[in-house]
Amino acid sequence: MSLEITFLGTGAAYPTPARGASALVLRREGQCWLFDCGEGTQTQLMRSHLRAARITKIFITHLHGDHIFGLPGLLCTLSLQSSPDASKAPVDIYGPLGLRSFLWRSLELSHSQLLFPYTVHELVPTPDQCPAEEFKDFSGLDRAEALPQGPPGRVLHLDPAEDSYLLVEDEQLVVRAFRLFHRVPSFGFVLEEKPRPGKLNVQKLKDLGVQPGPLYGRLKSGAAIVLESGATLRPADVLEAPIPGRKICVLGDCSGPLGAGALRLCQQADLLVHEATLGDSQQDKARERGHSTPGTAARLARQCRAKRLVLTHFSQRYTAGHAELQQLRGQAEAVLDGQEVMLAEDFMTIEIPVKK
Amino acid sequence: MSLEITFLGTGAAYPTPARGASALVLRREGQCWLFDCGEGTQTQLMRSHLRAARITKIFITHLHGDHIFGLPGLLCTLSLQSSPDASKAPVDIYGPLGLRSFLWRSLELSHSQLLFPYTVHELVPTPDQCPAEEFKDFSGLDRAEALPQGPPGRVLHLDPAEDSYLLVEDEQLVVRAFRLFHRVPSFGFVLEEKPRPGKLNVQKLKDLGVQPGPLYGRLKSGAAIVLESGATLRPADVLEAPIPGRKICVLGDCSGPLGAGALRLCQQADLLVHEATLGDSQQDKARERGHSTPGTAARLARQCRAKRLVLTHFSQRYTAGHAELQQLRGQAEAVLDGQEVMLAEDFMTIEIPVKK
Ligand SMILES: [Zn+2]
Ligand SMILES: [Zn+2]
Ligand SMILES: [Zn+2]
Ligand SMILES: [Zn+2]
Repeated sequence: MSLEITFLGTGAAYPTPARGASALVLRREGQCWLFDCGEGTQTQLMRSHLRAARITKIFITHLHGDHIFGLPGLLCTLSLQSSPDASKAPVDIYGPLGLRSFLWRSLELSHSQLLFPYTVHELVPTPDQCPAEEFKDFSGLDRAEALPQGPPGRVLHLDPAEDSYLLVEDEQLVVRAFRLFHRVPSFGFVLEEKPRPGKLNVQKLKDLGVQPGPLYGRLKSGAAIVLESGATLRPADVLEAPIPGRKICVLGDCSGPLGAGALRLCQQADLLVHEATLGDSQQDKARERGHSTPGTAARLARQCRAKRLVLTHFSQRYTAGHAELQQLRGQAEAVLDGQEVMLAEDFMTIEIPVKK
Repeated sequence: MSLEITFLGTGAAYPTPARGASALVLRREGQCWLFDCGEGTQTQLMRSHLRAARITKIFITHLHGDHIFGLPGLLCTLSLQSSPDASKAPVDIYGPLGLRSFLWRSLELSHSQLLFPYTVHELVPTPDQCPAEEFKDFSGLDRAEALPQGPPGRVLHLDPAEDSYLLVEDEQLVVRAFRLFHRVPSFGFVLEEKPRPGKLNVQKLKDLGVQPGPLYGRLKSGAAIVLESGATLRPADVLEAPIPGRKICVLGDCSGPLGAGALRLCQQADLLVHEATLGDSQQDKARERGHSTPGTAARLARQCRAKRLVLTHFSQRYTAGHAELQQLRGQAEAVLDGQEVMLAEDFMTIEIPVKK
């Protein structure tokens, strides 16, 4: 099953013709999941090979404008393209507390009525995710409002034991969020496929007299079968070790993770997408603004033993061909003992191969 | 003094790579005034010859997303580019009631603090500017909010005698708004330069023995002078008729004007910018959605005896080279007895020559 991510915007702070504001799409089984939605994301989607109508889930790392100002417009355009269908599953939107108010206000004041159902699930940040003076408590918003009821959705609190938020879980995968430190509360998301059953040991099965057919499928799905001899054959007897799923981590703006959640969840990530707003030579400035440099990103990747690091969210000062931009890769690779690091570009697609 | 308008977005409903969402800039004396600000306007500005930092006033015709979703992002980017300067005049923003709440919410929830002063002046629409079932009363918004105080600004009510709203008036020009009928309350704006004093009749002055010099300036500025003979020479004696100023009318989305204001204010406009979302063959559909066709626009232009009509806000169905798009011009010109009509394109600039 193919799994790929496509960057739609790789610039920091605001969109330019060279680099859009933050947005990337993860595509799996024909579904598109959008991570962040800076201004212009819908136009970037039109320029890409992806179809906006395939978006079923949206994840917002934090509420800075360069990550959310494209969301009301994208939803309105999706609505124009959708055919009313009461049975359609809602588009699930996940993001920090305050996102629901932002979206609802934008849609209500612009007289936009979405023709498809959607939910907004809000992650409640902890106050230590940003400098104390920057923290705003949005929990009381919209209580005393004359506006009609907004969209449905859950309020998700940190699971203190896991130091993470459980967002999505089905038979195939799990999506969790973890905490980052930034100028405002920011989150990272990790999508992890569940392990698949290992290969059937066909030789052993033949030796036992089990011929290829429906019984193979039953074993693979985890059910025991009874042999002609009357003996019971359990799946574990003929299945190789489970094949691990793929793991993709997409981090929002940060000067680093907060708590143990990030480190644990990102262990052995197949792909780690991390911001590197400024070069290592400006590390103090970057940290002061709640941002990272290639060195910051690479040290996390090393701690997590991530298999692939992609840097993104570059300051717009690094115009195309800017000398320092080319140095960013080297700054990260030096920390990772030469392991290859990628610099994201708008419309770059990275395929994460299935494990065998 | 040069006066020109540049279209930054000429498409309806949402931005595409071919046509941005609604936005145009009027440039006069090095100042840029922005009319509407759909998503992506800041990127379109970067692509144009204009400088966003020159924007001193912003006018919003109505609150549909394709006219406002670029505004929070544009203001944030202007802020990043601005140097704190307490003496700087505020950026004045004019638009329908509700705009202040939209802007303030977007900025507050995205933790955006603008480093330059700005004001939001809200026009209170009349309920008959849209179908009764679409009208929303935003007058009670933000009264019971926990958020800190928003930006300053006036609340502007219709002047029933003039059927218009007075927005700006200085020595050189006046800007008024008038009412339009659309799916939601919509406005048109008319900028009119005040007449300049006529030319001095130099021959007559010489005959009277007045030589070129400071006295000419005094006469031109409207002051009387005393001749050597002791007689008083009044400006009217030696000035030709005042030279009329230029008049530019920018209308928001509409199926037509409401009340007498539009017709009176747009008389003899040098330039009338009018939407034509769909072609004449879809007039019923256009009107039902609160929109115009080239015929609608041209009939208003004829009634106003506008000197130049520019059509814009084309349905995104009319892709580049779309056969029907080319017909739109002809549909308007037929109403205007062949007078040339222009179809707006992104980045098209139109100069309005000074009158002599
Ligand atoms: Zn950012
Ligand atoms: Zn940020
Ligand atoms: Zn529109
Ligand atoms: Zn509209």
